[in-house]
Amino acid sequence: MNAPTEFNHLVPEVHQREVPAALLDALARRFGAQCSTAMAIREQHGRDESSFQVPPPAAVVFAESTQDVADAVKLAAQHGTPVIPFGVGTSLEGHLLAVQGGISIDVSRMNKVLSVDADDLTVTAQPGVTRKQLNEEVKSTGLFFPIDPGADATVGGMSATRASGTNAVRYGTMRENVLALEVVTASGEVIRTGTRAKKSAAGYDLTRLLVGSEGTLGVITEVTLRLYPLPEAVSAAICSFPSIEAAVRTVIQVIQLGVPIARVELIDSNTVRMVNAHSKLALREQPMLLMEFHGSPAGVKEQAETVQEIAGEHGGEAFEWATTPEERTRLWTARHNAYFAAIQSRPGCRAISTDTCVPISRLADCLLDSVEEADDSGLPYFLVGHVGDGNFHFGYLLDPNDPKERELAEGLNHKLVARALALGGTCTGEHGVGLHKMDFLVTETGAGAVDMMRSIKRALDPKNIMNPGKIFSI
Amino acid sequence: MNAPTEFNHLVPEVHQREVPAALLDALARRFGAQCSTAMAIREQHGRDESSFQVPPPAAVVFAESTQDVADAVKLAAQHGTPVIPFGVGTSLEGHLLAVQGGISIDVSRMNKVLSVDADDLTVTAQPGVTRKQLNEEVKSTGLFFPIDPGADATVGGMSATRASGTNAVRYGTMRENVLALEVVTASGEVIRTGTRAKKSAAGYDLTRLLVGSEGTLGVITEVTLRLYPLPEAVSAAICSFPSIEAAVRTVIQVIQLGVPIARVELIDSNTVRMVNAHSKLALREQPMLLMEFHGSPAGVKEQAETVQEIAGEHGGEAFEWATTPEERTRLWTARHNAYFAAIQSRPGCRAISTDTCVPISRLADCLLDSVEEADDSGLPYFLVGHVGDGNFHFGYLLDPNDPKERELAEGLNHKLVARALALGGTCTGEHGVGLHKMDFLVTETGAGAVDMMRSIKRALDPKNIMNPGKIFSI
Repeated sequence: MNAPTEFNHLVPEVHQREVPAALLDALARRFGAQCSTAMAIREQHGRDESSFQVPPPAAVVFAESTQDVADAVKLAAQHGTPVIPFGVGTSLEGHLLAVQGGISIDVSRMNKVLSVDADDLTVTAQPGVTRKQLNEEVKSTGLFFPIDPGADATVGGMSATRASGTNAVRYGTMRENVLALEVVTASGEVIRTGTRAKKSAAGYDLTRLLVGSEGTLGVITEVTLRLYPLPEAVSAAICSFPSIEAAVRTVIQVIQLGVPIARVELIDSNTVRMVNAHSKLALREQPMLLMEFHGSPAGVKEQAETVQEIAGEHGGEAFEWATTPEERTRLWTARHNAYFAAIQSRPGCRAISTDTCVPISRLADCLLDSVEEADDSGLPYFLVGHVGDGNFHFGYLLDPNDPKERELAEGLNHKLVARALALGGTCTGEHGVGLHKMDFLVTETGAGAVDMMRSIKRALDPKNIMNPGKIFSI
Repeated sequence: MNAPTEFNHLVPEVHQREVPAALLDALARRFGAQCSTAMAIREQHGRDESSFQVPPPAAVVFAESTQDVADAVKLAAQHGTPVIPFGVGTSLEGHLLAVQGGISIDVSRMNKVLSVDADDLTVTAQPGVTRKQLNEEVKSTGLFFPIDPGADATVGGMSATRASGTNAVRYGTMRENVLALEVVTASGEVIRTGTRAKKSAAGYDLTRLLVGSEGTLGVITEVTLRLYPLPEAVSAAICSFPSIEAAVRTVIQVIQLGVPIARVELIDSNTVRMVNAHSKLALREQPMLLMEFHGSPAGVKEQAETVQEIAGEHGGEAFEWATTPEERTRLWTARHNAYFAAIQSRPGCRAISTDTCVPISRLADCLLDSVEEADDSGLPYFLVGHVGDGNFHFGYLLDPNDPKERELAEGLNHKLVARALALGGTCTGEHGVGLHKMDFLVTETGAGAVDMMRSIKRALDPKNIMNPGKIFSI
């Protein structure tokens, strides 16, 4: 989703560990002006796009190198003090919050693209590089990096949360696109995982273990990513449908046929209405699929024709095409503005965002029943989704001062997650567990799998200092 | 490669733990005829396609269910006795050998395809299902499973070793194609990792940690895999080149252009000669690329034209096309027979097989220097490769009774691995570490990363009973 803010009334259980003055002194000596204990700085590093309220970290270290990160972690380890990596603060699930106290390690100054290996379709970057910066810097090579969570997140943060976005249906998520990492471990040691080789059978897949570990196993200090050739031809289209079901059935058939569609996003009629009001557009106020096709000119044409035919069978109409970059930008604007349009549709509201993902054949079952429940609740909401992956987001728009609305929204979320799990899906397709989904994780994977995660955490971080209190309780 | 046998003169350090009679009694009571201590059975389970020589396991349990596996592991755990999972014994790196004694758990009777979810492009199978059986059983749905190591390995073994094969350039390896696992842990507990959802950000990626863990963290008892629609059109072609370099430069350019080629295999002129002699063919005795294109009829035509043009620029000639299944089978026969053809070219010989994989731009550097070294050595060899992934296999053909030749071959392998690592690659693209590449792994990843693997192993298998002595020493 685009820059969503998640609101949650649950304040997580907070066990603040004391940050000793000796550590703050040692950090000040080692880092000088690179370390701050100013309240404004601490507060800025004590919140993300979730709205959990916890005390901020005791200090912020602005790391400028791997050595800086390693030294900060070593000092913290000496005092048993938590360290929390920070990129640009766009996490949705409370990942950045100092629920057990500690210090924040801000890596946003580590923002160099270290090497673009265009011939190998790889790039190595520091963790503070954002996805837009990365694409700007590799543009001249004719390559691009497809993963696009709504926010202009850092590649470090995107790796840590196993992010994806609108292109994942074709290009995969961070799981498939991180080739190698440099990581500072809980003891302050620097290790490398993976190589630039496209495949490997060399021991445990530490890269994939660290991707999605949400800072709980180490601080990512370098990321090697896959790049893709900019497609020769790109074509985008909007198609309106008589019902969400018709749109969803179209998507299911497109995916089942193996059409290599690059993007296929659902926007429901509520949300189209909000977008029209916000962006002064005149889109049909019907459920809509926003699609993009990548390939050769002939390939794109062929894909689009196939999809148009399938859509037609489900009552899809008003295919609107865009092939120039400007036209495409206009179309995607509707998608990207959906979140803000929704928020503005109810002044003063906050949104609780869901993130379930189900096998594609169950998408209609999961989505349609949840739409019915949301409609019955009377709560206004928006609905957008990376439906080609079976992933979608409801944003329940609620009055933050009305506990009943909050309860209603959390109740809808719980029912949705239970439904998704029963259909063989997951509680989180791309936002991560953080603080908000710890209980859902246990329900989803079972206690045994979470115990295995805990054992790994204990082994790699015996003092429990790496972003503690996230994903699972110890 | 196709059914390669690896020969190694190094006998791994063996610390046989005694298998107590009480355990053998308990296994006999619990498993009856499903447990065997007959020497022939034990010996069959004490070797794989490597040629390390170690004593066989003390007993073999033929598991018929997850519960059988769990019970066998629990009994073994009570006695601190190693357990070694066994599928069909096609591992290349000594993965199956009882280097520390123990019992073998044969899962080949767990060979049911449990559910084909054609609408979701997924299948769930027991670990003893082989890849050919799997494709046979899903054929009627119009889907296929692309991962194809040379041997008709089991999906459990392929998961455990992170296998790939000729289709990986387009469809990825087991890393990308295992969605979820059921696993029996070192304590005999049954856990599930992952769901059938296409993507997930739900906690540590235990699925990817277990894929490639070579039986050292648990016994895989169920595998959920991605399937793909059988392409509408398939076209295969052979193209001959004036030099290996010309063939390799063609491949590099094809990959860099983003052509979604499904298979691109290199066979050097030595090997073509061996294949001609073996299969009574009359292929041009020149370096050859064997390619396959998948897609719509127009898409396949377009891909093939692009590749033919690039090949032409590098002196490629004699494109030979095959579009019917029969013609394609004839062409791929050359590739699949390469190993046997090579072995037969030198009666009584054994092969030492290499498995390096490098970033595509370094493929020529890595390969050409190694060809020169192999030529200078005077040892006969074959050379085949999944070159689209930067992965290739030399098979040095040596007289097993001549220690000098063995030394020569191991020396060539060491030089090749050192070169691949210096070029940013890996010692093993798809065969795994097993016993043979433990030292290479340390060189490749550094001691810190191997220490992290060890910590994980110790945490999840405190008694070190899960296939001990593989990947790294404890």
